[in-house]
Amino acid sequence: MSYYLGIDLGGTSIKAGVVDHQGRVVAKSSAATHGKDGPDAVLKDIAKLAATIVEQAKLKMDQIQAVGIGSPGPIDFENGRLASAPNLPAFRDVPIRDRIAAATGRPAFLENDANAAALAEYWIGAGQDPKIRHLVALTLGTGIGGGVVVDGKIVHGGFGNAGEAGHLIVMPNGRLCGCGQRGCIEAYASATHTAKRAAEAIEAGETSTLTDVTTKQNRALTAKDVFDAAKANDALALRIVDETALYLGITCVSLCRLLDPQIIVLAGGMVEAGDFLIDKVRQAFTSQNWQMAKPRVRIVPPQLGSDAGLIGAAAVAWNAQASSTTASQASP
Amino acid sequence: MSYYLGIDLGGTSIKAGVVDHQGRVVAKSSAATHGKDGPDAVLKDIAKLAATIVEQAKLKMDQIQAVGIGSPGPIDFENGRLASAPNLPAFRDVPIRDRIAAATGRPAFLENDANAAALAEYWIGAGQDPKIRHLVALTLGTGIGGGVVVDGKIVHGGFGNAGEAGHLIVMPNGRLCGCGQRGCIEAYASATHTAKRAAEAIEAGETSTLTDVTTKQNRALTAKDVFDAAKANDALALRIVDETALYLGITCVSLCRLLDPQIIVLAGGMVEAGDFLIDKVRQAFTSQNWQMAKPRVRIVPPQLGSDAGLIGAAAVAWNAQASSTTASQASP
Repeated sequence: MSYYLGIDLGGTSIKAGVVDHQGRVVAKSSAATHGKDGPDAVLKDIAKLAATIVEQAKLKMDQIQAVGIGSPGPIDFENGRLASAPNLPAFRDVPIRDRIAAATGRPAFLENDANAAALAEYWIGAGQDPKIRHLVALTLGTGIGGGVVVDGKIVHGGFGNAGEAGHLIVMPNGRLCGCGQRGCIEAYASATHTAKRAAEAIEAGETSTLTDVTTKQNRALTAKDVFDAAKANDALALRIVDETALYLGITCVSLCRLLDPQIIVLAGGMVEAGDFLIDKVRQAFTSQNWQMAKPRVRIVPPQLGSDAGLIGAAAVAWNAQASSTTASQASP
Repeated sequence: MSYYLGIDLGGTSIKAGVVDHQGRVVAKSSAATHGKDGPDAVLKDIAKLAATIVEQAKLKMDQIQAVGIGSPGPIDFENGRLASAPNLPAFRDVPIRDRIAAATGRPAFLENDANAAALAEYWIGAGQDPKIRHLVALTLGTGIGGGVVVDGKIVHGGFGNAGEAGHLIVMPNGRLCGCGQRGCIEAYASATHTAKRAAEAIEAGETSTLTDVTTKQNRALTAKDVFDAAKANDALALRIVDETALYLGITCVSLCRLLDPQIIVLAGGMVEAGDFLIDKVRQAFTSQNWQMAKPRVRIVPPQLGSDAGLIGAAAVAWNAQASSTTASQASP
């Protein structure tokens, strides 16, 4: 039996778990992230959490194969450093990988959380079948996060910035994205922009049951509002959801042309609330896909639930050790 | 000194070469492809050609590390079979890899020509620097061919169809592509479609010096006509070329977001005739690229000239042996 330690470092909490080689969570715990106290304090808390759960799992630290850390990006993979993170403003070029390796005495690997989520699904989620070696994961939330697995390894690219599928351009000179580009899929199909597109249409004078929310409830629209209205056959909401599905379908086609994955995982609240969106994405994909060969990719929701973050972090350790990877490793 | 045998199988000719481990062509020869005589005859000709050039290089066949074959696609990589090829209609599910391995007594590897071209540039062309491990190559011709190198290996994908960058969608519900999709980059920026877009604009009544070609010379426009007119400041031609550059720039941005390559090679007559197009693509790329980080990718023309096909085929053998690859190998 092999064990991995997964640490999911977020802006508000740190989740840690001992995960076995089949991805089962043997022990887990969490703590608040005292980000304002600075990296030293946070790293100390992580080390304490790690020691606690290893004991809780009735193991010794040297029975842990490796430690994986999932953190907000951008990451300097070569040196295992967290370059910066909007949710952790006190973290600037912090050598997290080496500090955790030193604190635990185990090999450590640092990965961004979107890539860790993709690895989790590859390891024991939607891509668990050993025949699956190529997978792309997209998480539709405030933004759109992405992770690309090619031949069993996460792709970092030449400068550590690969996998940003949310910033594939789907519309020339289209909507302005937070990244500065125009026409990113994120600027159309994230939860935020799906709600925004509906709000803009209403502001432009289109009629919809959604005006109840904006005028009577006097609050901003959410993606959930739009999906609820679409399910109740509101014409505007349906059009907005269909457009979200179309752009996602086109993105899936482009992913297939370039990378030919066996699985595309679509995650996030809009997808996981039911089959409404993913069915529409599959339809859009089929209608937009080339006619040269029948599509064999499966477009699926994620299989991992609330422990996805720490399983993803453990998956980073597993994947880095399972392959002669370019991942960011530090031996203690 | 290691030697590889490269065989570039085309619809009209077979080119073969002995290439050393630094990519230098030691001996080469070619023969007509008697495609109509069927696979057996063609494979016999290939074997004869192989024996001839090995002798010409003053080597014995067992001094050849491996044989690489570049052929038109689609290929069944797992079994090393050419599934079909428009230029070689008599070839249907032909086990080229195993037949060549048996004929030469050397390990053989089969790859499609677009991927072989990408590997050639990766090996000893624009991506020769050993620090370069991530490269994408696009060839703008009748269509747009592509090849993707991730971490030093060509990407085949889950079903053998990766690298088809010409069919990334750049315009939702856009121009119809030969593949059946709408809005592929190929349907805008291939040489064929660049000429077509100009012809369509003229047919729609726009004025241009290009009407001289269509009316006085009474022939169809070529991409070269459009580029010549653009260089002479014809407004319509300039707009068409600028649009070609814009769509290619957007495609390069999307490639960077997903794969973060160090090098993007743009090949084909439109690029290799001079800096006119590639300069415009670089400008479009810079203006469309995100603001999160300065772009570090280099967008460059290919470095290999007329021997690119057979060097590409040899590169397939080199790359397959240099890496524990999933490439299609047959030991004799």
